[in-house]
Amino acid sequence: MINMTEIQFGILADTFHAPVKGELTFIPDFLILVDLRGDIVATFHSDDVDYSVHLNALCDSLKLITVEKGQYLMPGLVDLHCHAPQWPQAGKGLDLPLYDWLQNYTFPLENRYSDLAFAETVYQDVTRTLLANGTTSAMYFASIHREASELLANISLEQGQRAFVGRINMDNAEQCPAFYCESSVEQSLADTEVFIHNVRGMKGNEHGLVKPVITPRFVPSCTETLLRELGKLVQHHDVHMQTHCSESDWARDYALQHYGKSDIEIYAEAGLLNNKTVLAHSIFLTDNDVAVMKEFDAGIGHCPLSNMYFANAAMHTRELLDSGVSIGLGSDIAGAPSPSIFRASFDAVTHSRVREDGVDSRLTAEERGVVGSRVSFIEAFWMATAGGGRVLNEKVGLFEKDFHFDALVIKPSAMGNLRIWQDMDTPRDILEKIVSLGQSCDIDKVWVQGKQVR
Amino acid sequence: MINMTEIQFGILADTFHAPVKGELTFIPDFLILVDLRGDIVATFHSDDVDYSVHLNALCDSLKLITVEKGQYLMPGLVDLHCHAPQWPQAGKGLDLPLYDWLQNYTFPLENRYSDLAFAETVYQDVTRTLLANGTTSAMYFASIHREASELLANISLEQGQRAFVGRINMDNAEQCPAFYCESSVEQSLADTEVFIHNVRGMKGNEHGLVKPVITPRFVPSCTETLLRELGKLVQHHDVHMQTHCSESDWARDYALQHYGKSDIEIYAEAGLLNNKTVLAHSIFLTDNDVAVMKEFDAGIGHCPLSNMYFANAAMHTRELLDSGVSIGLGSDIAGAPSPSIFRASFDAVTHSRVREDGVDSRLTAEERGVVGSRVSFIEAFWMATAGGGRVLNEKVGLFEKDFHFDALVIKPSAMGNLRIWQDMDTPRDILEKIVSLGQSCDIDKVWVQGKQVR
Ligand SMILES: [Zn+2]
Ligand SMILES: [Zn+2]
Repeated sequence: MINMTEIQFGILADTFHAPVKGELTFIPDFLILVDLRGDIVATFHSDDVDYSVHLNALCDSLKLITVEKGQYLMPGLVDLHCHAPQWPQAGKGLDLPLYDWLQNYTFPLENRYSDLAFAETVYQDVTRTLLANGTTSAMYFASIHREASELLANISLEQGQRAFVGRINMDNAEQCPAFYCESSVEQSLADTEVFIHNVRGMKGNEHGLVKPVITPRFVPSCTETLLRELGKLVQHHDVHMQTHCSESDWARDYALQHYGKSDIEIYAEAGLLNNKTVLAHSIFLTDNDVAVMKEFDAGIGHCPLSNMYFANAAMHTRELLDSGVSIGLGSDIAGAPSPSIFRASFDAVTHSRVREDGVDSRLTAEERGVVGSRVSFIEAFWMATAGGGRVLNEKVGLFEKDFHFDALVIKPSAMGNLRIWQDMDTPRDILEKIVSLGQSCDIDKVWVQGKQVR
Repeated sequence: MINMTEIQFGILADTFHAPVKGELTFIPDFLILVDLRGDIVATFHSDDVDYSVHLNALCDSLKLITVEKGQYLMPGLVDLHCHAPQWPQAGKGLDLPLYDWLQNYTFPLENRYSDLAFAETVYQDVTRTLLANGTTSAMYFASIHREASELLANISLEQGQRAFVGRINMDNAEQCPAFYCESSVEQSLADTEVFIHNVRGMKGNEHGLVKPVITPRFVPSCTETLLRELGKLVQHHDVHMQTHCSESDWARDYALQHYGKSDIEIYAEAGLLNNKTVLAHSIFLTDNDVAVMKEFDAGIGHCPLSNMYFANAAMHTRELLDSGVSIGLGSDIAGAPSPSIFRASFDAVTHSRVREDGVDSRLTAEERGVVGSRVSFIEAFWMATAGGGRVLNEKVGLFEKDFHFDALVIKPSAMGNLRIWQDMDTPRDILEKIVSLGQSCDIDKVWVQGKQVR
């Protein structure tokens, strides 16, 4: 019997999660006990011996939260790749070529975050919106501005979102516009060290809900020296690292032309890879690239909707899931418009289906697609939760002992489009419907680290 | 000067519509005068000579509706292809092969609509949900049940939605399950004639807001005799016709194997094509098929999200738009989960972009995709509004004299994901954001035929 004085609350709910990749677990009347720090102490199935005694003890101590039938508890969603300063750009400019989009729209927008009042407005809204969409853990690219990046970290902390925030490093004058380029390797490193120190030391961040991330933008925007020096910081501080990886034909070719190597090989040699690394996109990978990722336990942030617009090809999601490399999902705001990781999950399935079938009706069915490349909704849900948690190397995305209680409750709203018919829908159907049709209006409650934040 | 006693109301709004395919028209402070029947009598730009006098007259007679700045008026959306009885299936079973999906899930579900109480529950919800998503005109496949199909027509009428409702014809015992197959050509025709008569004669339908549609399911499910007899009814009653057309490799091959012809050729020879025909999907078309469609002025209901799951290839949307054939959009509930035609618009762009770039990263960029096949957001918006109206041969989808006033107001909700930044977003950006991110919570008002229905 667990001591109730050490329990913050217990929650009783019909519960979805995915401890095993590709398998759905649905547990009716699951009981989860959360301690004073917001971590899970124990879980009970209704046929466990100790179930009733704990349920009664929670009732007696007024610590039981009961989720009504027809509503569902699931782990909070993990967004591995979101450019917070690009939020005002979400849903526009998708018809521009990537280079034009970056140089003429994105970089000028990102540069506005030297203005802290502007940053405050946008960052408050983007974190609130992601939470409303059920994203309890978000890894953010901020901008090159240290102070505004610290502001984003602080706003995430205030709003109670588990956040991984990176101030961007980009110092290659050949690829970066003069108005949006760091002045030297030294300045870039100094700002990065101060940023790491300040985020770790933020008031209220004693338990590390918000963490700093070393963030070289991508290979073309950084000098080789900067990449190597940042690699030393990654190793020294044992810190998260995020960057873009082999996103498009152009990005892949740039690395080959300038280094004679792939992005992964460049990052590995610079010392940038570790078990807390998020490599966004990762479309054009060689077998060796995948082996290197696994060697370092570096993970992938798969951004399917953005890929449909900017990656020039479909990700090898099927093969990567099967390879055992760590993989989760990203919104890639604003390379894609939607802040919803349910939407990213759905799009991961969709793009894999389009890859399987192909697109060009002039070819025969055999020539058109890539046989056997589809991904299931359950695998997509795994990526959105447990998979993302594994990439972050954080105990999130599952309801198991010692995991942080990051969770949401789905309550289908008449205002939205999600409809569940209890006499017709199996648990598997219900999960597929939530992924396909769930919107923020259907997310009734959100907790991060045991604290209800919505 | 227009006589104000003949005016129901005037509406003043920042307005989007797309009279010309591929061109966006944004008119600040557009003034639209709507008569007692709900049709548009006149429109005025703010620099028109008569603008102020009409504005003042409307004010004086308390007939002016003013849409606030930051909100936008646009034509109501047109859904050319929605299987209303499949609504409970929306968002599930997308991983099933099409044949299995139809035989084991869809047909048993559709057969439940012999139960009028069940039909009432679902049909109330699906029409309400489509209206909430801004769909003011919907073309519905119902089921083989005449009474339940008439109930759908009546519910649409009550809810004030412009609807085109078809009782399904399917009599081919070789392809239809025994439990869900019409008993004879005679029964099928007799029920169809009664259905047409009853829908046209519904109380309250004197102006034909709801219209009957002759609806052979698709080539495989109908005998040749039935197709020919239905063709006679189409000609005799000058009525709308809807069916599926060349949706997948299997459907295309079935027609070739059993008739030695394409779907379009079969429909044309049966007399089924007219200027009010909606051919859903239409993926595998020959040049001759397109010529035949244009000859009859038959139109296409493009369902991009469903195509990504079930069509085996991407539609030739770019070429079809350029060919001048009539084309609009469909949700294809429940071959795709979303009831939103904004979503269908976005997906039309997305699938065209995936077609352009291709999917198979093992191929070179040149071999991978179909050069120049992208569709723009503005073209997608045109399909969702004016294009759909043209396919239906109805005066909807535009704000012009003599068109019906079917419209919606976008008011970005803090509950949703649509954000407009007045100092950063052009009208074109705003439209792209609405298409990309607009949800039902952002649709503040909906009118059909001048009547506010939400
Ligand atoms: Zn990115
Ligand atoms: Zn259909």
